[in-house]
Amino acid sequence: MKVALISFTTIKFKKMTWDTEFEIAFNPKTVAVVGASRKTPPFSDFVVILQNAGFPGRIYPINHKAVGEEIHGLKVYPDLVSVPEPIDLVTIAVPLHAIPSVLEDCIAANAKNIQIYTAGFKEAGDEEGIALEEKLKEIAERGGLRIVGPNCMGLHVPAAKLTTWISFDPEPGPVAMLAQSGGHAGQFVFDAPLHYVYLSKVISYGNAAVLDCIDFLEYLSTDAETEIICMYLEGISDGRKLTTLVREINKTKPVIIWKGGTTDSGARAAASHTGALGGEMAVWDAFFKQTGAVRVDGADELLDVAMTFRYLRHVASNRVALVGGGGGNSVAGADICARAGLALPTFSEATLQELGSFIPREGSIIKNPIDIATSMADLNIMMRSIECAIADPSIDAAIFILSPGLFFLKAAIDPASQMTTIQEAVDKQARIILDPLIELDHENPYRKPLVMVFHESLARFLPGQEEQLRQELLKEGIPVYYSLERASRAMGKFSRYHEFHRKTDAPQ
Amino acid sequence: MKVALISFTTIKFKKMTWDTEFEIAFNPKTVAVVGASRKTPPFSDFVVILQNAGFPGRIYPINHKAVGEEIHGLKVYPDLVSVPEPIDLVTIAVPLHAIPSVLEDCIAANAKNIQIYTAGFKEAGDEEGIALEEKLKEIAERGGLRIVGPNCMGLHVPAAKLTTWISFDPEPGPVAMLAQSGGHAGQFVFDAPLHYVYLSKVISYGNAAVLDCIDFLEYLSTDAETEIICMYLEGISDGRKLTTLVREINKTKPVIIWKGGTTDSGARAAASHTGALGGEMAVWDAFFKQTGAVRVDGADELLDVAMTFRYLRHVASNRVALVGGGGGNSVAGADICARAGLALPTFSEATLQELGSFIPREGSIIKNPIDIATSMADLNIMMRSIECAIADPSIDAAIFILSPGLFFLKAAIDPASQMTTIQEAVDKQARIILDPLIELDHENPYRKPLVMVFHESLARFLPGQEEQLRQELLKEGIPVYYSLERASRAMGKFSRYHEFHRKTDAPQ
Repeated sequence: MKVALISFTTIKFKKMTWDTEFEIAFNPKTVAVVGASRKTPPFSDFVVILQNAGFPGRIYPINHKAVGEEIHGLKVYPDLVSVPEPIDLVTIAVPLHAIPSVLEDCIAANAKNIQIYTAGFKEAGDEEGIALEEKLKEIAERGGLRIVGPNCMGLHVPAAKLTTWISFDPEPGPVAMLAQSGGHAGQFVFDAPLHYVYLSKVISYGNAAVLDCIDFLEYLSTDAETEIICMYLEGISDGRKLTTLVREINKTKPVIIWKGGTTDSGARAAASHTGALGGEMAVWDAFFKQTGAVRVDGADELLDVAMTFRYLRHVASNRVALVGGGGGNSVAGADICARAGLALPTFSEATLQELGSFIPREGSIIKNPIDIATSMADLNIMMRSIECAIADPSIDAAIFILSPGLFFLKAAIDPASQMTTIQEAVDKQARIILDPLIELDHENPYRKPLVMVFHESLARFLPGQEEQLRQELLKEGIPVYYSLERASRAMGKFSRYHEFHRKTDAPQ
Repeated sequence: MKVALISFTTIKFKKMTWDTEFEIAFNPKTVAVVGASRKTPPFSDFVVILQNAGFPGRIYPINHKAVGEEIHGLKVYPDLVSVPEPIDLVTIAVPLHAIPSVLEDCIAANAKNIQIYTAGFKEAGDEEGIALEEKLKEIAERGGLRIVGPNCMGLHVPAAKLTTWISFDPEPGPVAMLAQSGGHAGQFVFDAPLHYVYLSKVISYGNAAVLDCIDFLEYLSTDAETEIICMYLEGISDGRKLTTLVREINKTKPVIIWKGGTTDSGARAAASHTGALGGEMAVWDAFFKQTGAVRVDGADELLDVAMTFRYLRHVASNRVALVGGGGGNSVAGADICARAGLALPTFSEATLQELGSFIPREGSIIKNPIDIATSMADLNIMMRSIECAIADPSIDAAIFILSPGLFFLKAAIDPASQMTTIQEAVDKQARIILDPLIELDHENPYRKPLVMVFHESLARFLPGQEEQLRQELLKEGIPVYYSLERASRAMGKFSRYHEFHRKTDAPQ
C-alpha cells in the first residue's frame, strides 16, 4: 500500500447501523419535504416530483408559513415534530440560514435520514459557508444524523419510486451510481434507462459533509440489487480506505470511476463546486493501477462502459472482428480499435476461404476489418460476412457499423420504385436490415456478442427514427454505440478489467 | 529538411498543363460515362447521378452492347471515338479487364481527363491486380492521360454540378477535400453541407496510380475557389515534395490532414485498401511539426476542424470562457478544455463583480467556467452571464453548452400550464432560448465569437428537432458542435495553427 491520498479532518459518523436504520432511507414509507413550496420552482418541487413518480408511501410537506393550507393536495405541517408518524427520510430545501434549526428539529423528531438540497456551504469558498458546514457537521454528530449532502440531489431508487428528479423511469436494474455532482447524477438518471441500463440506486451526495463516498460504497457493496457501481468523484476524505475498499468490491462488482478535476482548470472548478481537494493525478494513477477500477473521463464514456458491462457479461477478451464501412473506414476503424486496445486478429484460412467464396473480389477487402462496401448490393453478403466473422475461432465478438449506405442495399430498396426517396426506402425497409441482425445475434451458436455502431451521420439521415431503431436493438440485447471510437474505448476498458482480474486472481 | 518518407517508383505525369487542359476536367462541358448501364446499379449509375445533379453539359453514355438503344433518355455510343465532340472528362466504370482497351480508346479519341471507378488493381494484393495497375500506368504515360484513380469516386464540383455522388448539394464554398478513400470523400460530401461547410472541389483519387495528392495539392494551391484544404491520406509517393508543398500552401490556405493507417492494424488495412505504404509514424510526426498542417484523427474531427476554420476566421487565441452546464459539468468542462489546449483565464475583478451582482450566490460558481445551473430559472441571468463573459478583456471567445435542462427555464415554460410536457415546452419556447443567443452573437460589440455545444442528450430529448435548431444556428453563423470534447479539440487545433504561424512568420 503506497497510496497516500490527501486526507483532511472530517467528523465521521459511525456506520454500524447501515443494515437497519439507514436502509430504510432507500425504501422509505414516509418522506418529509422541509421547505415544500406553494408555488412550483422549476427544478426542486420535491413533493410534485414524488407524486409524479408514484411514490407509494406518505409525503409530509413542511412549511411553517403555510400551516392550515394544502400543498399539492397534502396537509402542511409546521415542523417535523408535528408529523404524526416516524419519518424515514427528510428532504431539506430551505434557505441556507434556516438549515441548522431544521436539523435541530430532525433531532427532536428522531428523523435521522436526511438529504439536503440547499447549497452555499463550503463550496461557496467564503467564511460564512465554511462556518455553516462546520455547524452542520457538529449538529449531525451530536444528533447521530445520517446526512446526504448538502448541495446535492440525494437518493434516487426506482424500485422504491423514490426520486428528486423530474425524469423518472420506474424500471429497476443492477447499476448504481454515486456522484458528487447533481448534474452528472441527473444526466445518468436520464440517459441510462434510454440505453436499457436500469438503476438500483443513484446517490448524489454533493459536499459529502457527513456521509461520503466510502459510506455509500460500503452500503452498495452489500446491496443485493447492485451488481455494477458507477462513480463521479471530485475529492475524497480517506484515500487509503477508498483504495482498500474499491479493490475489494471491484473483484465482484465492477467499479467504474470518473474522476473530475484532473487538470489545473478542472481542479479549480472542483474546489468551487463541492469544496473538494482533488489530490494529485499521480496519486490517482496509482489508485487505478492498484484497485483495477475502470477509469473513465466523461459522462458519455461512463455510460458506454456501464452499458458494456451490462450487455457483454461473458466476453472477457479483446479479440474482435470489424465489419461494415468501406475501405477508408476499414483503415480508420482498424486504427481506432488498435488505439483502444482491441485486437483485430487475422481470420483463419478456412474463414478467409469461405468469405472469398461469396464476397466479390473487386472493391472488397477480405481481411479483418472486412470491407463489403461495393458488395453491399446484396444483403445476404453482409449477413453472411458477419456470421463468418463471428464463427472464426480467433474472434470473440463482432462489431458491425450501420451506416446510411446500408439503406441503399438492393434488398432494402423497394424494387417497384427505382428512384424511391431515401426516407421511403428507410420507412419501408429498415425491418429488412434489422431483423436478420437480431436473428443472427439471438441464434448464433457461438454465443459471441454482436455489437452495433450507429454511424454518426445516421442521426441526420434518419432524424428521430434512428433513435427508435437504436432502442429496438438495445431492447433485443444488442448494445448500440454512437461511434466506433466510443464502442472500442468501452470494449477495450471492459476487456482490460477482466485481464486485470485474470492476472491478480491467478494463483501465485 | 530531415524528412525522408518512403518513396517508391512511380511513373509521373508531367504537370505543366494544369491551368489549361486539366482545368476543364473540373468544369467540363462534356462527360462520357464508359460502362453506362441499362439497369441501375445501387451506387454507381453515373449517368443518372449527373442528370439528378443538374449537370448542364452533355452526357455521353458509352456501352457497345447497347448501341441503338437509349440509356436514361440519351443516345448510346459504342466507344469514345464515336462521340461527335471533344470529351472533357471520361468516367470509367467497366469491369477490370476491359480497362486497358478503354484507355486505348481514350488515347484514340484524344480524351485525356479520366476518372476510373473500377477496383481490383494493386490494392487487391495479387499478381494480376499489380500487373494491371502497371499496364494502366504504362498506357497513361504513353498517351499523356490524366487519370484520377483507379478504385475511386473521382471529382465532385458543386459549382459545375459535377459529381459521382447520390447526395449532392449544389451550393459552392471555399473548402476542398482530397481523399484516398471514396468512403471518406462521400461522407464529407454528405456531412459538410449539413454544417454549412460548402465545397469547392472534392477529389477521391483511390490508388493514385497516375495523379496523386501532390498533383491535386498543386492544383488546389492556385485554385481561387479554394481557401481551406482537407485531406484523407493513406500513403504517399514523395514525402519530401509533400512536406515542401504543404508547408508552403499552409501559410495561406490551412491544410487539415487525417492520416489513416497509424497503427499496425490500420496500416495493414491501408495496404489492402489503396495499396499504399503508410510510412512510419515518427516520419509523420516530423511532417506535421515541420509543415504546421493541422493533424486530425478521424472523420468527425476533420469536419469539426474544417467547420472551425470556416466560422472562426478571426479568433487566433486559445482563451475561452465556458458557460452552462452545472457544477459537475463545470469541472468536467474545465478538464476537457484544458486537455485540448484551451485556456480558461480567470475573469477580471470588474467582470466577477458584475457577474456577482445578478447571479444568486447559492448553487452557482461565479468563476470561469460559470455555473448558472440553479440560476437557470431566469433566462436573463443566462444571457447576461454570456454577455459578461464575452466582454471580459482576457477572453476571446465564449463556449455555451445548450443542455436539456435549459428548456426548464422559467421563461421557456408556458406559464399558463405548469405541468406542460417537455415536448410542448420545447415546441413553443425554443425560440425564446435561441433568439437572444443569435441576437447576442450578431450584435455583441466585441466581435468575439459565440460557439455552441449541443449536449449529447439533446438529440434524445428533442428527436428530429435538435437537428433543426442546430441548422438554424449554423445558418446564423454560430458554429454548433456535438460535444464539448469535439468543440474544444477543434478550437485547440485551430488556435495552435495560428500560434504556429505567429512563431514561424515572425521576423528572426
